[in-house]
Amino acid sequence: MAKDKKQKPRRPKAEAPRGFRDSFAAEAAARRSTLSRITEVYHRYGFDPLETSAIEYVESLGKFLPDVDRPMGGVFGFQDDDGQWLALRYDLTAPLARVAAQYRQDLPSPFRRYAVGSVWRNEKPGPGRFREFTQCDADTVGAASVAADAEICAMLADALEAAGIERRDYQVRINNRKVLNGVMETIGVWDPSDPDGDPARVERRMTVLRSVDKLDKFGPEGVRLLLGPGREDESGDFTEGARLSAEQIDLVMGFVEAEREDGAATCARLRELVGASETGAAGVAELEQIAELLDAQGYGSGQAKLDPSVVRGLGYYTGPVYEAELTFEIKDEKGRVRRFGSVAGGGRYDDLVKRFTGQATPATGVSIGVDRLLAALHATGRVNDQAAQGPVVILAMDRDQMAGYQAMCAELRQAGLRAEVFLGGGNMAKQMKYADKRASPVAVIEGDQERADGVVQLKDLILGAKLAQEIESREEWTAQPAQISAPRGDLVSEVRKMLARHS
Amino acid sequence: MAKDKKQKPRRPKAEAPRGFRDSFAAEAAARRSTLSRITEVYHRYGFDPLETSAIEYVESLGKFLPDVDRPMGGVFGFQDDDGQWLALRYDLTAPLARVAAQYRQDLPSPFRRYAVGSVWRNEKPGPGRFREFTQCDADTVGAASVAADAEICAMLADALEAAGIERRDYQVRINNRKVLNGVMETIGVWDPSDPDGDPARVERRMTVLRSVDKLDKFGPEGVRLLLGPGREDESGDFTEGARLSAEQIDLVMGFVEAEREDGAATCARLRELVGASETGAAGVAELEQIAELLDAQGYGSGQAKLDPSVVRGLGYYTGPVYEAELTFEIKDEKGRVRRFGSVAGGGRYDDLVKRFTGQATPATGVSIGVDRLLAALHATGRVNDQAAQGPVVILAMDRDQMAGYQAMCAELRQAGLRAEVFLGGGNMAKQMKYADKRASPVAVIEGDQERADGVVQLKDLILGAKLAQEIESREEWTAQPAQISAPRGDLVSEVRKMLARHS
Repeated sequence: MAKDKKQKPRRPKAEAPRGFRDSFAAEAAARRSTLSRITEVYHRYGFDPLETSAIEYVESLGKFLPDVDRPMGGVFGFQDDDGQWLALRYDLTAPLARVAAQYRQDLPSPFRRYAVGSVWRNEKPGPGRFREFTQCDADTVGAASVAADAEICAMLADALEAAGIERRDYQVRINNRKVLNGVMETIGVWDPSDPDGDPARVERRMTVLRSVDKLDKFGPEGVRLLLGPGREDESGDFTEGARLSAEQIDLVMGFVEAEREDGAATCARLRELVGASETGAAGVAELEQIAELLDAQGYGSGQAKLDPSVVRGLGYYTGPVYEAELTFEIKDEKGRVRRFGSVAGGGRYDDLVKRFTGQATPATGVSIGVDRLLAALHATGRVNDQAAQGPVVILAMDRDQMAGYQAMCAELRQAGLRAEVFLGGGNMAKQMKYADKRASPVAVIEGDQERADGVVQLKDLILGAKLAQEIESREEWTAQPAQISAPRGDLVSEVRKMLARHS
Repeated sequence: MAKDKKQKPRRPKAEAPRGFRDSFAAEAAARRSTLSRITEVYHRYGFDPLETSAIEYVESLGKFLPDVDRPMGGVFGFQDDDGQWLALRYDLTAPLARVAAQYRQDLPSPFRRYAVGSVWRNEKPGPGRFREFTQCDADTVGAASVAADAEICAMLADALEAAGIERRDYQVRINNRKVLNGVMETIGVWDPSDPDGDPARVERRMTVLRSVDKLDKFGPEGVRLLLGPGREDESGDFTEGARLSAEQIDLVMGFVEAEREDGAATCARLRELVGASETGAAGVAELEQIAELLDAQGYGSGQAKLDPSVVRGLGYYTGPVYEAELTFEIKDEKGRVRRFGSVAGGGRYDDLVKRFTGQATPATGVSIGVDRLLAALHATGRVNDQAAQGPVVILAMDRDQMAGYQAMCAELRQAGLRAEVFLGGGNMAKQMKYADKRASPVAVIEGDQERADGVVQLKDLILGAKLAQEIESREEWTAQPAQISAPRGDLVSEVRKMLARHS
């Protein structure tokens, strides 16, 4: 018994759960700074912040994850004490639809909101594939006009540039689900008089959309297989096809490849393809309007253009759809050169609020995948890491003098400088190693002799690191102007001067 | 069958789950701005941001919620596909301990990090009691010196002032668990040679601590009952007491009421009370050191002081504990005047990382309850709501001119002004009502006549609202300088001038 009681409990393993991760100083600071640049643009466009709970009733969320058929598939769900099922949100759109319905009497209309937050997907994790990630959304609820869609496309371009993506490196590509439906109507897999009626037909339509969405991945030949008999990949896995006829496939592919030299020519080609479909014609007219509005706001085709191959995977889009593609090339994990690809997408979803209220409520919005965007900024070397500079470190030369060191530190901080006293244990070498690890720009040293003389030593660690690469012996190194002696009373002004050398 | 298929699915109810809430524009903006002011202070003190996942392995979190004994009690937990139990974090300290253990080879030591994020408690919700809230923490891991504790107390004071709490309205109160343990040793409920040995004794010690922690709530008489036979509240609910003798109770109460005119006098009194306890004496020495360090950094007793009645509910503290109390008075929900109370707390927890590694790792840190702090800022009218000003609204007078209105809007935005075109439906009255709801400072009007004349009308809505309170007739109102006509080419400069009237 006594032995049992003394037995140590098994130690928990120190690790984040599978598919989750931690972000440290530079990465977390870059994310923060990027989010604040994006939301500053959203704010300037008249969008207000909205923060909703991470947890929603499962039935509020609905089943709008792509490629998921199981109930609760793809979400982290759990039952509340009162028996109701809760889940972590998998995007920021479903909570917005809930809020727009819940507070519809009180909100301004249109309701423009932006939101930043984590979303969770209960999926199989893989390399670069995480189960928690950050989205940064902006949506307009209550505006039926495609002016709202055009505005969001313009804002997306501005937001990407604010985040540090250069104009030549991205394109906002715009399409319209109504045009897609028009084509679907023409080939007989969609009936505008009963759009949601026959589940088998709805499913077939989604299969067609998903096939078209794979154009970037599998090329036109792959899409043809997916639209027809199905496609076997390299590993032998077979994906069931939409079983369209050769004629139907030609029509769909004609649509996917309808892009012409400018928006007007593309629209003319689309108008041919949708034929007699009223829905299709309405979609083309909307695209024309969007192109005109973007033009009036000064967004050239380099920034935003019509592209009939854009689909977006989600089932709930009802009109314009758009995505931001980064056009520069990177090497993928297998060393193949490819375009960086999509970092943001969105579209019009006029029926999501209706799920709650029964009344159609127009809505459109965009979601930026912030982690993908940060990866892109890293890839192009344009990540903002100013916030990553370390603090001035005051060395703890003499443990009895902590009060004096802290007083120096307080002076620096009150002057707005980032500073700290070394609070760990260890000799000077260890403390300098710490300063190095923290990317500290300046070390402050006050030993007995300095205190007696009323001075402090200031080491310029940035210059020191540069010099150290060139100079062999420590004697030479300490003789360099990378270290100066300054009167104790001039601490703040001398540290400022040293920092200014490198700004 | 056909009827079945046509049956509409039941509509989900549009509501946040019980105990969760939504924050709209002004509130969300105030939270954001307050967090950024606090983290700016943390950053200046040399702390780096760390972002961890919201989900942890249950065994990583441990059972450190106050007043919870059930396994999984108090947390939202769920099982992963591989059978492991996951849970949403209930604070930001447990994930930090996991990170400090997981990355201990690579992190600088000391490791100073700050974190901002939601935490979740699966508790019974009530008025003002939510199941998701925001914490804003800063911790130093790897510094054994109480200089680290003193620094965090100083930083807490600076952070509160940066957030908008005036110096006269708060106090950082500091105590030390070692002193408490010394008293516990003196009365025989704690044995320093076997501190965690006997579960019954550990439990009794926690009961004593929890009783002392209720001083603010129940007063000295209530605490005496809790230390002794137990206490019955107004509703008849009985709380079991610690069953100390009258003599033991006198000793504990003597300790709780040991505060004297200054830190030195308080320490002298504490030294008497801990008697022969070495742990107690060590605790008093630490308090003396903290007082000296804060003094050297210029923090007067108005900002930070020793207060032996501070306990903090959590079981894992091992040394200094501290909390920030807001001292101004408010009326509670029952109309009674009381002090606002605690908005932040923390302390030293040298054993949390050891759970993972087996090696003692000193650590100390503070958590600010951001929602409590925002409530305090509201109560004192000092919430920062600059970010809540609405956009300039360009009225959509003529639907065919949307491109022109959007072009105006783009000009304003490019000049850095917050602006939007009204994108909803409705006549001018409805659009003006929208502008009002958005707290818009200026409305821009361009109808046919204005377009023909090459001008725009600008309405100063802030001035207009003021004038409207004083003037009866609409004729007079429109004659006021709250509305001006300006050349279309001067749009940006004239809007700027109008905005400058109120800044």
